[in-house]
Amino acid sequence: MTDTPSPLRFDDAQLHILDQTRLPFSEHELRIDTAAQAAHAIATMQVRGAPLIGAIGAFGLALALREAAEDAWLDFALRMLAETRPTAVNLAWALRRVEVAVRPLAPHDRADAAWREAMAICDEDRAANRHIGELTLDLMQAITPKSGRLNLMTHCNAGWLATTGWGTALSGIYLARQAGIDLHVWVSETRPRNQGLLTAWELARAGVPHTVIADNAAGQLMREGRVDAVIIGADRIAANGDTANKIGSYLKALAARDNGIPFWVAAPWSTVDLSCRDGRAIPIEEREGREVRELRGAAGGARLLEETSAVENPAFDVTPAALVTALVTELGVIECSRVVSLEAFAPAINPQKLM
Amino acid sequence: MTDTPSPLRFDDAQLHILDQTRLPFSEHELRIDTAAQAAHAIATMQVRGAPLIGAIGAFGLALALREAAEDAWLDFALRMLAETRPTAVNLAWALRRVEVAVRPLAPHDRADAAWREAMAICDEDRAANRHIGELTLDLMQAITPKSGRLNLMTHCNAGWLATTGWGTALSGIYLARQAGIDLHVWVSETRPRNQGLLTAWELARAGVPHTVIADNAAGQLMREGRVDAVIIGADRIAANGDTANKIGSYLKALAARDNGIPFWVAAPWSTVDLSCRDGRAIPIEEREGREVRELRGAAGGARLLEETSAVENPAFDVTPAALVTALVTELGVIECSRVVSLEAFAPAINPQKLM
Repeated sequence: MTDTPSPLRFDDAQLHILDQTRLPFSEHELRIDTAAQAAHAIATMQVRGAPLIGAIGAFGLALALREAAEDAWLDFALRMLAETRPTAVNLAWALRRVEVAVRPLAPHDRADAAWREAMAICDEDRAANRHIGELTLDLMQAITPKSGRLNLMTHCNAGWLATTGWGTALSGIYLARQAGIDLHVWVSETRPRNQGLLTAWELARAGVPHTVIADNAAGQLMREGRVDAVIIGADRIAANGDTANKIGSYLKALAARDNGIPFWVAAPWSTVDLSCRDGRAIPIEEREGREVRELRGAAGGARLLEETSAVENPAFDVTPAALVTALVTELGVIECSRVVSLEAFAPAINPQKLM
Repeated sequence: MTDTPSPLRFDDAQLHILDQTRLPFSEHELRIDTAAQAAHAIATMQVRGAPLIGAIGAFGLALALREAAEDAWLDFALRMLAETRPTAVNLAWALRRVEVAVRPLAPHDRADAAWREAMAICDEDRAANRHIGELTLDLMQAITPKSGRLNLMTHCNAGWLATTGWGTALSGIYLARQAGIDLHVWVSETRPRNQGLLTAWELARAGVPHTVIADNAAGQLMREGRVDAVIIGADRIAANGDTANKIGSYLKALAARDNGIPFWVAAPWSTVDLSCRDGRAIPIEEREGREVRELRGAAGGARLLEETSAVENPAFDVTPAALVTALVTELGVIECSRVVSLEAFAPAINPQKLM
């Protein structure tokens, strides 16, 4: 199988990222030289997607330790990076992992060790995502499509752009495409930030047949029997399986259940936060109203709404575990609706001893 | 109570409409002098909303009969106007009503009679909508708000802009505001055409507190206990109560049920189509992909998506009757989920003997 592209590129010990605020309209690379640049990239969504912001957080910490490496500075950099986005737990997980690797070291050894740990996070992320794809492919092959081809629906972007490679929800789709399976993907626009357009861009590049829809259309397509399964990524999964993901995921999960359609969540185990008992413990990021008031297109933006109306802009919602037919992690496929706690799955392999 | 504005204005026997493709960014009136202009206004959504396109269809037929009035021309004009938009049954209903009024007449009497019938349709629509508002207000007052004030959620625009006055879903909200009830409205953006911005514009003009959200945010707000009831309009209601309305309504209905929130549909009886046994018989309009590919804002538009991706753009979805807590028509409030057929309600008062 051919690897997917990656949103990261390394040039010696220099990190370059694809600026996702300019995609899909233009492909523009940014060099990330400092922890502040890494934090800015995460907060402004130049990089986005739970696994990718984890990786960038790790590199950000390594870059911080190039500037200074004593404990006080380490603590400051950890806090500064952790505060950039609250919902995706992969960021906290990756920062903690780098911290555990470097804190016992003498300051002058910390920067290199942090960089190596960040690189290891990337390698493991790609491998985990690839394996998630293989497991998802098995799920897809167990389905009898309602029409001639397999119709999947996804939300937001959980592709290679959202990770260090392969993607989570899209990983199995790329593997299915490479295996010659006849499939088609419904791509939900995903207002207000329209990450569905990133998914369409990825799928077009990979030659995967797809159709973009307004988020509102998801339910009607399911009612018409034109969707065989829904697959999304995740930003944080509570111990009971409640899943925080891009705003609008919950509505798709409800429609999937109402129409007897499988609803799959694909995410590396680092997205599971056993310290959250259920979805109510997951902090939901409220982003600035400007994202709803304005929309950016190929040639600049369009202002939609004046200040005479208030705006509320929660970036994530929580899908209850009961609506998740399968949680696909690199540890295996878990039927969330039949499981009391994901904790039971953690100790067996436990790649997450640091959480 | 003060009447709401109307999207129609008459100047002798001249019809003027507010161009809704330019709202809320600019208030621009168009004069409708011919049947072709009326058909164009409906097809391009210069006028929109089921009751309003019924009225404009009726005026369009009257204008056609000013040009020529023999049977063949009457038949042609009826067909031309009926084909402008397929889902809202009010258009077919209004055209049929004018036809019944004028076909028995001599050709030279037809144009004036048609105009009078169109004016009667407007008067009755305003009265029906006002009464729908009173009935909705009763429903609102029977609710104990979860917080200090009553939080309603609406979708698309079912306000005075969508009717000849008062609106359907918003009628009760205007009456509640005038009665001094402390309420707040969540306004869903309603991609791809963003009619939620029309609702925000209406509510801002009327001083009704409101907040605009991306369509995707509806479920999360309900989960958080921040919505007391959902109220929408309708484009066609089947005999069993299945309700076609703007795409995305079904998703809100699912979320309302999942969170134990009442889901109300407000529409004049002319929206009920007893000839459709259930929602599967309602034609769903597929509109051009450009509505998804591009977005129009205050200063021109923004191109979002290139031709490398396909687009599908169903304009309506069907909410099953079981999810409709109350159907509010001018004939009274009907609990759709408890009723086998709406036919039982029609004969009692039967304002719709022409259907």
